[in-house]
Amino acid sequence: MAKSSEIEHPVKAFGWAARDTTGLLSPFKFSRRATGEKDVRLKVLFCGVCHSDHHMIHNNWGFTTYPIVPGHEIVGVVTEVGSKVEKVKVGDNVGIGCLVGSCRSCESCCDNRESHCENTIDTYGSIYFDGTMTHGGYSDTMVADEHFILRWPKNLPLDSGAPLLCAGITTYSPLKYYGLDKPGTKIGVVGLGGLGHVAVKMAKAFGAQVTVIDISESKRKEALEKLGADSFLLNSDQEQMKGARSSLDGIIDTVPVNHPLAPLFDLLKPNGKLVMVGAPEKPFELPVFSLLKGRKLLGGTINGGIKETQEMLDFAAKHNITADVEVIPMDYVNTAMERLLKSDVRYRFVIDIANTMRTEESLGA
Amino acid sequence: MAKSSEIEHPVKAFGWAARDTTGLLSPFKFSRRATGEKDVRLKVLFCGVCHSDHHMIHNNWGFTTYPIVPGHEIVGVVTEVGSKVEKVKVGDNVGIGCLVGSCRSCESCCDNRESHCENTIDTYGSIYFDGTMTHGGYSDTMVADEHFILRWPKNLPLDSGAPLLCAGITTYSPLKYYGLDKPGTKIGVVGLGGLGHVAVKMAKAFGAQVTVIDISESKRKEALEKLGADSFLLNSDQEQMKGARSSLDGIIDTVPVNHPLAPLFDLLKPNGKLVMVGAPEKPFELPVFSLLKGRKLLGGTINGGIKETQEMLDFAAKHNITADVEVIPMDYVNTAMERLLKSDVRYRFVIDIANTMRTEESLGA
Repeated sequence: MAKSSEIEHPVKAFGWAARDTTGLLSPFKFSRRATGEKDVRLKVLFCGVCHSDHHMIHNNWGFTTYPIVPGHEIVGVVTEVGSKVEKVKVGDNVGIGCLVGSCRSCESCCDNRESHCENTIDTYGSIYFDGTMTHGGYSDTMVADEHFILRWPKNLPLDSGAPLLCAGITTYSPLKYYGLDKPGTKIGVVGLGGLGHVAVKMAKAFGAQVTVIDISESKRKEALEKLGADSFLLNSDQEQMKGARSSLDGIIDTVPVNHPLAPLFDLLKPNGKLVMVGAPEKPFELPVFSLLKGRKLLGGTINGGIKETQEMLDFAAKHNITADVEVIPMDYVNTAMERLLKSDVRYRFVIDIANTMRTEESLGA
Repeated sequence: MAKSSEIEHPVKAFGWAARDTTGLLSPFKFSRRATGEKDVRLKVLFCGVCHSDHHMIHNNWGFTTYPIVPGHEIVGVVTEVGSKVEKVKVGDNVGIGCLVGSCRSCESCCDNRESHCENTIDTYGSIYFDGTMTHGGYSDTMVADEHFILRWPKNLPLDSGAPLLCAGITTYSPLKYYGLDKPGTKIGVVGLGGLGHVAVKMAKAFGAQVTVIDISESKRKEALEKLGADSFLLNSDQEQMKGARSSLDGIIDTVPVNHPLAPLFDLLKPNGKLVMVGAPEKPFELPVFSLLKGRKLLGGTINGGIKETQEMLDFAAKHNITADVEVIPMDYVNTAMERLLKSDVRYRFVIDIANTMRTEESLGA
């Protein structure tokens, strides 16, 4: 029989886990492996709360194993390194994003696209090489192979920078891949949330002209005045949508629930690209004529490779891009999840792990 | 009141038209405009029967105006040219494809992508600049602005070359646009029909390794032995499909009726491209995760610009690419349409217009 997660590894760890589909998170004692020769151990400082965390703790995608410690927007400080680690040293600030493992030998891995590997190991909820479950950043300590460790740029804030590890790379990567990173490009961002507001900042930093498309008129002012978007379209206003017909080169669609795609395709010029970065549970209805006339395409991406994630962090530091965050204490996380579902956050919750997560000892364990 | 199509123009014309959603074609007297200074008039020799013709005569897409003379794979010989025509001269063989007009001034037109223009004028079933309905190649004579006239390569057969004007460009164009035209690329072609068999030939000419995917085992031998495909997958055989998982760089999906897309996405490598060139009536169900993991994309195209169509014809002539055709007499067309719906043709019907369409006079009109 497999050992319990509390004793399967030699290093004590402590975090918050969901135990069932209620998705409620509560304190959880587990363990982490000893620091291997290529491993980096870190004390977690901050961890962003991603919409994926919400999907996963509720098993919305159907592949969750409980208990699950979520969190893949992790910033910490290195506390120990293995004998062969070259990338970072004790005391460095570092990040861990969505991945902590991949095969390292397939075509995708060799091309620095680890997220396309058939054998990716997610930062949480995956089986690691040693057969044990990976646990994420809603915890006091992490350990990972240095390949999956990101160097934290000096002037990038630790708290508001944390969400870039998922929201940043997920929006930066498709803008680059689809050639939407040229100055003057006309970009639409659908859904002004955790991913969307970072997409706006990334696109602006590339020199794009950015249109935010949202279902809530309340986002107009924020989009234009706070985030620097160039224009705003209310999704439900057919006149506004019609007026912007055939005006965009590309759209980053961040909405993680099902919604009609035809009106978005109508906003695209010929050769326009609609890229889904949200992950709704149900299949979409796709109007084929939207693609045919004008040779448009529908793409999708999830996060990106490690090399590109580092490039994105450096780009963000250079252009002063961070997420707009509400820093919360650990024991607020269940309330945060409820608010997340109602889009009641501007725009990302980040848990102050180091300062607010009560230790095993203080809980009397 | 608008004049009847028989007398609205000075030049008598004769063809076969559908009058209602039965889609039945029957002889039809109409008229064509006088040859303008930039116009080319031709005697129609051959016209291919495209699946779109079937959709249009039955108003399957909901925008057909009756009577309608279909046909957009037209090969003919020039009988008259306007004073300013430079591209061709009387006696030349020429082609007309899917378009006879566009604005000629928008971004798409200026970029030689006339088919992306917002004001394209289809070869049949569109309103021309003069307010009259365009009629296609199931007729004795055509007239078109020289811009939309294709020079016919010397060694390209007139009958079996005709379908290239739609089926050829529709498959050639996405292979080029999506970078699937490099030697060694692994291409899937879904549906071995009019478009599919040309897609196989185009991809082979580019040096690709081609896998045909079809629902009919009877196509295996034809695909491998006759068309030179490298492998064949029976769509319904889950073992075969599983065995080819993550093996293709791109797929040209020619199937003009709804079908599941997830099994096709599974055949693609990361960064793989699934391009729809068929036009089913109903929206598809799109499994979003098929796109996200592996950054795959779904594209769609219809035909291509005039410059690229000429390039495709020249490429076909150079590589001895023609369609496999069954040449039929004009009065067989209704039977041909029935057989087309049952995929009972290897692989394209082409009407021998010049030799088999009885003239107005012989019908006693």
